[in-house]
Amino acid sequence: MKPAQLVVQRIEALARITDEPGRITRVFASPAMRRANELVASWMREAGMKTRVDAIGNLIGHYDGAKPNAKILLLGSHLDTVRDAGKFDGPLGVILAIACVEELHRKQIRLPFAIEVVGFADEEGVRYQSAYLGSKVLAGVFEEKDLNRQDAEGISMRDAIRNFGGNPARLRQAGLKPINLLGYVEAHIEQGPVLEKENLAVGVVTAIAGQSRFKIEFTGRAGHAGTTPMDLRQDALCAAAEFVLAAETFARKKYGLVATVGQLRVEPGASNVIPGGTALTLDVRHQKDSVRVAGGKMLRKFAKKIASSRSVKVSWQRVQQTDSVPCSVEFSGLLKRAVKQHQRKVVALPSGAGHDAAVMGRITPAAMLFIRCKGGISHHPDESVRPRDVAVALNVLFEFIHLLAKTIE
Amino acid sequence: MKPAQLVVQRIEALARITDEPGRITRVFASPAMRRANELVASWMREAGMKTRVDAIGNLIGHYDGAKPNAKILLLGSHLDTVRDAGKFDGPLGVILAIACVEELHRKQIRLPFAIEVVGFADEEGVRYQSAYLGSKVLAGVFEEKDLNRQDAEGISMRDAIRNFGGNPARLRQAGLKPINLLGYVEAHIEQGPVLEKENLAVGVVTAIAGQSRFKIEFTGRAGHAGTTPMDLRQDALCAAAEFVLAAETFARKKYGLVATVGQLRVEPGASNVIPGGTALTLDVRHQKDSVRVAGGKMLRKFAKKIASSRSVKVSWQRVQQTDSVPCSVEFSGLLKRAVKQHQRKVVALPSGAGHDAAVMGRITPAAMLFIRCKGGISHHPDESVRPRDVAVALNVLFEFIHLLAKTIE
Repeated sequence: MKPAQLVVQRIEALARITDEPGRITRVFASPAMRRANELVASWMREAGMKTRVDAIGNLIGHYDGAKPNAKILLLGSHLDTVRDAGKFDGPLGVILAIACVEELHRKQIRLPFAIEVVGFADEEGVRYQSAYLGSKVLAGVFEEKDLNRQDAEGISMRDAIRNFGGNPARLRQAGLKPINLLGYVEAHIEQGPVLEKENLAVGVVTAIAGQSRFKIEFTGRAGHAGTTPMDLRQDALCAAAEFVLAAETFARKKYGLVATVGQLRVEPGASNVIPGGTALTLDVRHQKDSVRVAGGKMLRKFAKKIASSRSVKVSWQRVQQTDSVPCSVEFSGLLKRAVKQHQRKVVALPSGAGHDAAVMGRITPAAMLFIRCKGGISHHPDESVRPRDVAVALNVLFEFIHLLAKTIE
Repeated sequence: MKPAQLVVQRIEALARITDEPGRITRVFASPAMRRANELVASWMREAGMKTRVDAIGNLIGHYDGAKPNAKILLLGSHLDTVRDAGKFDGPLGVILAIACVEELHRKQIRLPFAIEVVGFADEEGVRYQSAYLGSKVLAGVFEEKDLNRQDAEGISMRDAIRNFGGNPARLRQAGLKPINLLGYVEAHIEQGPVLEKENLAVGVVTAIAGQSRFKIEFTGRAGHAGTTPMDLRQDALCAAAEFVLAAETFARKKYGLVATVGQLRVEPGASNVIPGGTALTLDVRHQKDSVRVAGGKMLRKFAKKIASSRSVKVSWQRVQQTDSVPCSVEFSGLLKRAVKQHQRKVVALPSGAGHDAAVMGRITPAAMLFIRCKGGISHHPDESVRPRDVAVALNVLFEFIHLLAKTIE
């Protein structure tokens, strides 16, 4: 069987391991995650790796370098999923990495660096609403207070880790030492439509975009839909509608900027009552923090202007802000060279979604390879990746490892 | 005590009769409605009227005319309320009518027509989601099948009427004979801001506007808010926002037309997901049916155009259509003459809300007098009417009765 075929077969096998029969759901420190770790560990051992599970439940396979104490190239992604997930978001990156090592092992190649393949224990944050638990531990930035979080059944994270066989007291010590690391490379489905539009199998990520999240409320005056003439209204939904379109128009003008109103609630929400209030969310992202921050400020001005022109009130609250994490120029450069050999065109694109690479980038050079997914659909059972694209990704990753080896020899 | 003061005092007394302690709620055939009928009947008798409660629970006070078998002028409004209601919506019209009769009684005046003051048993339709039960019975257009409707506790309308002391088998016979009627006049708070803006106590209603209600759905494509570039989106909320503003702009251009999007639901409704679907309601009203119907058609075209330009789908469903009911030209003319004598300016305005007058208008000339309410607020505890405006309304109604008597003598 060709390596790419084996990757696809393993994706399917892993997809059968779930906490919710009938759909794919693997949450942090769950029975399904234990079985997933066991299955993936068996593949790692077939690929010549020694395996271990760290204090939070990350699965790590180690493939020795040519010399003892060689630095480590980290490869991987996460093994947990959202609820009712697709098969590729996370597992593809782990299984591709194992396939690369398997190829080295089969050819009995030892590199001037060791490789560690990581299957992160939690990236999606479904169980504890706190994402990147796995990479935060490896990067040494885990926050102790998160151990007190409780899941929907009242089980604390501390107990969940203990029950899983981890050790909540040794999370700090489980961090990797940056001095020992060469860098981190993660292959992941794009979760967006850009590569499909470009008709390309893979692309190289420039940065993991920063994100600002806002909660905005327009407060007008409710009124009778039949008795209040148009010119005497203070319709909070009309104000919100104007803002939704202003955000769209503004983001369209700035390359790479995305602005999304994903939630919008109308009060009182009756068909015969003029909306007196609307509450909406705004999500703004760009790979350059300055562009994102300026965008947020400009949209706030728009909201105030719209509110003022309509005699309604607006409240504006920033609920989250995450800075952009640029990918390593060196590692991305090698990835691009690798892509060039296996694809007619090299495309660089930002990642609008967050990834473990954003956390790992805090302690070591990080880079990402995106793989085309059908319709840009992700976090959904319809998530789909072509086997041919898997083959391209595998070739590129393998090529990257060789190019990296050359720069070090 | 001056008659207007007495009206205000009675409004307050009636407001203390409720099915829900702490707020005003009087629903059809409830214990509070029984007590309300008893109290209002006592006022009717003080005003020289004979009282009866008909088969559905309408309270009717009869004041004889100068001759036996004289035709009847109907005055009144409804005694039921919405949940957590104001004090004036409904009761004001009944109590003003009683005050007029009381004045006739005090002055021992008999007119060339009898007067019947009606306190309708159900206009708001809170208990059975079927409005105008009271006036439908008097107008002979009650639908038997409504008797099978159940309230939130599973009590059928049939049983509720029976328990209240009514007779579900005699609803048809309870209808008034049009040949015996002169017409119906209802005083009611405006429930809108027009009179307040005009700084006038009262206004004469031209017509009870027709209403079209639509359910509209835009279906685009959900997507990741971070990874989907602006130009590759099919955002169902942006389409809906464009429609909300198109409806507003369109209605603003046409005098008297109102268009309201009162409900808007976003799917999936997560801050980091591009809306894949929106469902919204559209309420269109105008006193001329042709304008309303043409408006609905035009807005449907707008929706299709917006959807097509954004590559989203739109579905459009008409869920309700009620034709406009013009007020009687003769009765409204008399009302205007009466207004002229008690106010610097006569204003005629359509009623955007439905009223018992729209039902009574099917069998007899109907007219309405609107009374200014603070901020146009109604269906809310903040509903408020100035005592001075009550006095003006009382004078106008009394004047109207005299003018009508003159046309008949």
